[in-house]
Amino acid sequence: MALLVMKFGGTSVADIKCIKNVAAHVKREADAGNHCAVVVSAMSGQTNRLVEWVNEASPDYDEREYDTIVSSGEQVTSGLLALALQAVGVKARSWQGWQIPIQTSEAHGSARISNINGDNLRSAMESGQVAVIAGFQGVTGQGRISTLGRGGSDTSAVALAAAIGADRCDIYTDVDGVYTTDPRIVKKATRLDKISYEEMLEMASQGAKVLQTRSVEMGMKHNVRLLVRSSFDDPKASPAAGTGRQSEVGTLVCNEDEIMEKHVVNGITCNRDEAKIMLTNVADKPGVAGKVFGSLADAGVNVDMIVQNLSEDGKYTDIAFTVPASEYDKAMNVLETSKEVLGYKSLRGSKDVVKISAIGVGMRSHAGVAAQMFAAMAQKGINIQAITTSEIKISVLIDPAYSELAVRTLHTLFGLDEE
Amino acid sequence: MALLVMKFGGTSVADIKCIKNVAAHVKREADAGNHCAVVVSAMSGQTNRLVEWVNEASPDYDEREYDTIVSSGEQVTSGLLALALQAVGVKARSWQGWQIPIQTSEAHGSARISNINGDNLRSAMESGQVAVIAGFQGVTGQGRISTLGRGGSDTSAVALAAAIGADRCDIYTDVDGVYTTDPRIVKKATRLDKISYEEMLEMASQGAKVLQTRSVEMGMKHNVRLLVRSSFDDPKASPAAGTGRQSEVGTLVCNEDEIMEKHVVNGITCNRDEAKIMLTNVADKPGVAGKVFGSLADAGVNVDMIVQNLSEDGKYTDIAFTVPASEYDKAMNVLETSKEVLGYKSLRGSKDVVKISAIGVGMRSHAGVAAQMFAAMAQKGINIQAITTSEIKISVLIDPAYSELAVRTLHTLFGLDEE
Repeated sequence: MALLVMKFGGTSVADIKCIKNVAAHVKREADAGNHCAVVVSAMSGQTNRLVEWVNEASPDYDEREYDTIVSSGEQVTSGLLALALQAVGVKARSWQGWQIPIQTSEAHGSARISNINGDNLRSAMESGQVAVIAGFQGVTGQGRISTLGRGGSDTSAVALAAAIGADRCDIYTDVDGVYTTDPRIVKKATRLDKISYEEMLEMASQGAKVLQTRSVEMGMKHNVRLLVRSSFDDPKASPAAGTGRQSEVGTLVCNEDEIMEKHVVNGITCNRDEAKIMLTNVADKPGVAGKVFGSLADAGVNVDMIVQNLSEDGKYTDIAFTVPASEYDKAMNVLETSKEVLGYKSLRGSKDVVKISAIGVGMRSHAGVAAQMFAAMAQKGINIQAITTSEIKISVLIDPAYSELAVRTLHTLFGLDEE
Repeated sequence: MALLVMKFGGTSVADIKCIKNVAAHVKREADAGNHCAVVVSAMSGQTNRLVEWVNEASPDYDEREYDTIVSSGEQVTSGLLALALQAVGVKARSWQGWQIPIQTSEAHGSARISNINGDNLRSAMESGQVAVIAGFQGVTGQGRISTLGRGGSDTSAVALAAAIGADRCDIYTDVDGVYTTDPRIVKKATRLDKISYEEMLEMASQGAKVLQTRSVEMGMKHNVRLLVRSSFDDPKASPAAGTGRQSEVGTLVCNEDEIMEKHVVNGITCNRDEAKIMLTNVADKPGVAGKVFGSLADAGVNVDMIVQNLSEDGKYTDIAFTVPASEYDKAMNVLETSKEVLGYKSLRGSKDVVKISAIGVGMRSHAGVAAQMFAAMAQKGINIQAITTSEIKISVLIDPAYSELAVRTLHTLFGLDEE
């Protein structure tokens, strides 16, 4: 018997047929004796429709009313799933954020959960009733409905799992787990049985589509084990929690300690949302870099990789760095208008770059990973334009023409190809 | 300065354009210094869509989940109207049933309001903020969302008006008031300035389309003055409450005492939802009528007009009565299967009848109204099949072929034709 939180996103509850399929997944777990809380998103399309109405009614809208309106989507799904469960003989009831209650901050539209009283929920669940919870929403201290921001249903699920001390939080989505790399690039990509929270966070470019970063952070903080799995798997063929190997159905995101067999590298990611910017002949004296990056920070530009050449004459140097492609124009604009203050000679930039990363907690105890990586790339004739490293990640900036080749090369190099 | 409740139905808030029109009506009242609470229904079509989903999810549904799902329609409208008001510079916020709270019984799907705490609402309104209230919904003692049944937004509005001691409750609808009779039948039909609660209730066949019977009863009980008016009138051209004659914009449903100039008859109605049933040669002895109407009552059939002939021989008699056309088949079925017990000779029936009624509180103090009515109809060759009277109503059953003629004749007879 497990205490289980199950979360289903918008595409998993897109229509009544989908909702009945979700009910079948829940029934499998309930029939196996598990105590279940199910967190649901709005039926896909509904939230967009509601947001359109809000914009039509008042382009400059009051976030409190936005939340009242938009949260209705999850309210509807929670009721419909409770009904679909009852129809297949599973005791169930819906819970809105204010009924539990899920207390949040007053930051409407992107509220943070401050407290969840899981008592009522737990006692309902322990009586054998499935709790169907409207995701994405809570209630403020003022008694107004709040929402957690887009993708907030993942956060609701993980926060609830923490509050009720769930054994696992299953995130049902449209993919069946986390892969070593994008299977569209590398056919031999393999699904990971387990991945640590830290690795999952670093795999953001892949991970963001599977799991909201915020929910992974929350899982890490409260030690909630997350199982990423597909809602389109046959509900009856999947093993219920506690009755089979979870690795058969998805990827478990968990604490590093729980992962017995560690690869040095667990994943290769390719991020195309990158742009590089270079300033030449910048004065090589203290405070200059501070001025450059300070002006970008003031404009809200997120700078990622930074490369500063050693100056030959001790007077001038070049500074290169990357920003998200979406912030490129803003960054260039800031630098152009500050040319005199910053005192560089020329400003150049390009969106024609990609960032390839190798990620793995095994790197911590394994020397020479970077050297291996650079050598393999050099052997394929791939030029590295910039490098950054963290404790569990090595990233390189390269020409986009080589991106697939680079991903495949590293995937093979680190032993991730499916046998 | 008036304390005003305004209620807008589904067709008045059908889309964002309509909602902005509603905002213009509310702005007019708020700008004139009135303190406003606005009760809204779901956007027309939304409730039906939600009900369809409920039926698809579980034909044999749990009323508590039905209420959770269906109440979301009003939740959305309340938020949208609050936004539309803010957009035209009117301070406003939305209120859900559970936020006020509007306490109801546990009878989900057709709950009755047990208590409204108007304190929070009043203090918000007195601070100059318009309170936009999701109609049709409340909250049970268990903290679950309840709904008041179809048309319940009228009831919400009147109950709120009573709870906050409103000076008037304006019911905005798609007609501009209550008429002396159906203007489609009688071109000279006139809009009534005022009508008493009792008359409004008797004019159910017309009234049901304009005002829910339950809300009129509640208005009468709590002495809430109701103004029936059109949401499609030009919002700016209408006088605000306290600044003009309300008779210019609609019909006031109020206490009889408030009506100075009383007509003997105020309205002529024509109800086509009638069927007549006749039992011949029923034993003329005590208890027989009790058996007949008892068996119908047990089956939930509402019997209206009853005519029992005097028997010629003291042994047998005929009993005739009317039932709503929709209950005709059920009634015939009950009587057929009980033939032996009831002991009649033949059973006949027909849906080919209409009921014409003359309604007016003036009848109480005015003798001879019935005689006048029968004479006028006889003069036009209209045969009367049955008669019932109440203190303020005289109804006759006639052949449908004569219905327009009868209505026009009585409309002229009682001086209701427009000059």
